[in-house]
Amino acid sequence: MTRFAVIGDWGTSRLRLFRIEQGAIVARRDGPGIGAVGRAAEAAFADTIAPWLDDGTPESITLCGMVGARDGWVEAPYADCPADAATWRQTAVRFDWRGAQLAIMAGLACEGEDGIPDVMRGEETQIFGALALDPALATGRHLIVLPGTHNKWSLVEDGRIISFRTMPTGELFALLRDQSTLGPKVELTDPADEAAGFAEGLERAGDAKLLQSLFAARAMRLRSGRSGDWALGYLSGLLIGCEIAEIMTTLSGADGVVLIGDKRLSARYAQALDARGIMSRALDGDGCALAGLGFTGELTA
Amino acid sequence: MTRFAVIGDWGTSRLRLFRIEQGAIVARRDGPGIGAVGRAAEAAFADTIAPWLDDGTPESITLCGMVGARDGWVEAPYADCPADAATWRQTAVRFDWRGAQLAIMAGLACEGEDGIPDVMRGEETQIFGALALDPALATGRHLIVLPGTHNKWSLVEDGRIISFRTMPTGELFALLRDQSTLGPKVELTDPADEAAGFAEGLERAGDAKLLQSLFAARAMRLRSGRSGDWALGYLSGLLIGCEIAEIMTTLSGADGVVLIGDKRLSARYAQALDARGIMSRALDGDGCALAGLGFTGELTA
Repeated sequence: MTRFAVIGDWGTSRLRLFRIEQGAIVARRDGPGIGAVGRAAEAAFADTIAPWLDDGTPESITLCGMVGARDGWVEAPYADCPADAATWRQTAVRFDWRGAQLAIMAGLACEGEDGIPDVMRGEETQIFGALALDPALATGRHLIVLPGTHNKWSLVEDGRIISFRTMPTGELFALLRDQSTLGPKVELTDPADEAAGFAEGLERAGDAKLLQSLFAARAMRLRSGRSGDWALGYLSGLLIGCEIAEIMTTLSGADGVVLIGDKRLSARYAQALDARGIMSRALDGDGCALAGLGFTGELTA
Repeated sequence: MTRFAVIGDWGTSRLRLFRIEQGAIVARRDGPGIGAVGRAAEAAFADTIAPWLDDGTPESITLCGMVGARDGWVEAPYADCPADAATWRQTAVRFDWRGAQLAIMAGLACEGEDGIPDVMRGEETQIFGALALDPALATGRHLIVLPGTHNKWSLVEDGRIISFRTMPTGELFALLRDQSTLGPKVELTDPADEAAGFAEGLERAGDAKLLQSLFAARAMRLRSGRSGDWALGYLSGLLIGCEIAEIMTTLSGADGVVLIGDKRLSARYAQALDARGIMSRALDGDGCALAGLGFTGELTA
């Protein structure tokens, strides 16, 4: 009988399980996303973890992400903002699963100053992980953003998540690129052209007039000889630039911006923030997720 | 042999031909949009007009719209802004078609003060038609908007179109409604709820923060008990409200806003403009198109 614990990140599109022995990750197993299995979540989980159960029962299993959504395995509540890590951890739903203590971490809910409510499920684990990994984030006022399909801009003060706002910039970009008359509809061939378009989109976003700057992605191809690569970069730069223009007021008083997630996208956000004179730094998304689940050792597996 | 002329509006999705005798519309025939026929445009036109040619050749045929695009029948040039009606009319492409003088009206091109180029093809006919129909528009400074998939906001001064800007608000709304995770994905059942959502979207657009207000369409359903109808209205109000917020600077000094096109959509724009204290009035789109094509008589057919 080997003593071990299991932690896992189970989002819409994939399940990732990590086996921890004596403070180290010794194995990893991947399974289907919660979006693909829905109500059959328990069976999918049992399948994925099965080989590890041959030599014993884990001391604990801790899962985060959409596994705790209404359409997931077992619904986990939302912790209300402002929330610190301890409150959030207490809000997890816990039950016995085949002799092991299983916890599904809570999501977070908040109501903005403007009265708009918001929710997240999965990202909070990365944010609390970042706070655990980086003592500099535990005090002061920081803006943490997780760029992706639905960007979560979160205001953290003295170790508590005060509020956050979802900005669906990534989803909007994908719609404009793939489904609209503005996207280039071509395979990209010239990264330099795309980067030039990105820079021009950022610049155009200066006055935050998104709607009246969108059509330029098409008109500049028709009338000014710009390429499809340029147009794609332009749309990306315009959207990210407008997003940051909108968030500028929230930024005031923050000690800086921390980006968590995909390296390439984080670099784009860093460029956009830099264009407005805002310092940022990037943290690794996987490391933050694992830290949020309680593992702060070396990432070796 | 009856003396007659033919005018027609041939857009992407439909061809509408009108037969004019002695200053009156005596017949109308509909045909396929230029988007459906492309290079076979001439054959489609011949099919549609055929019954009228039995008793003679028209004195003139005048067509406007996407029929003059590069992928249309014969490409018509763009007249450059600022342009008055006379200049625009001269820019048409004219050729002999089966003994008749056929004209395909020009589009319009402009370069905005911000360096963004823009084009229109079809809408200019409605705008010049409005100027022909309404003497009050022939002098002073007016903002004319044609709401639709690609809204054209046009600045008209002393009878000339000075510049315009395409805002793809309608296309963006359709994408968000039909293809995004923010749209309600349900059949609408409650117009009052939809109207309430529209009003709330308009109000939310007050600070023109489109990206950070979009997700509320989903979050307010999840957390505040709002309906799918509400969410649809909210998205519409938010987009139209942000569009008008962006255009406010252009509005300064204008004698008012004239809306041309679909009645229901024009009413929505009128409501959004009114919420910002801007007067507007609506003109019938069909009447404006016919007037732009030279017919200013009674619309009887």
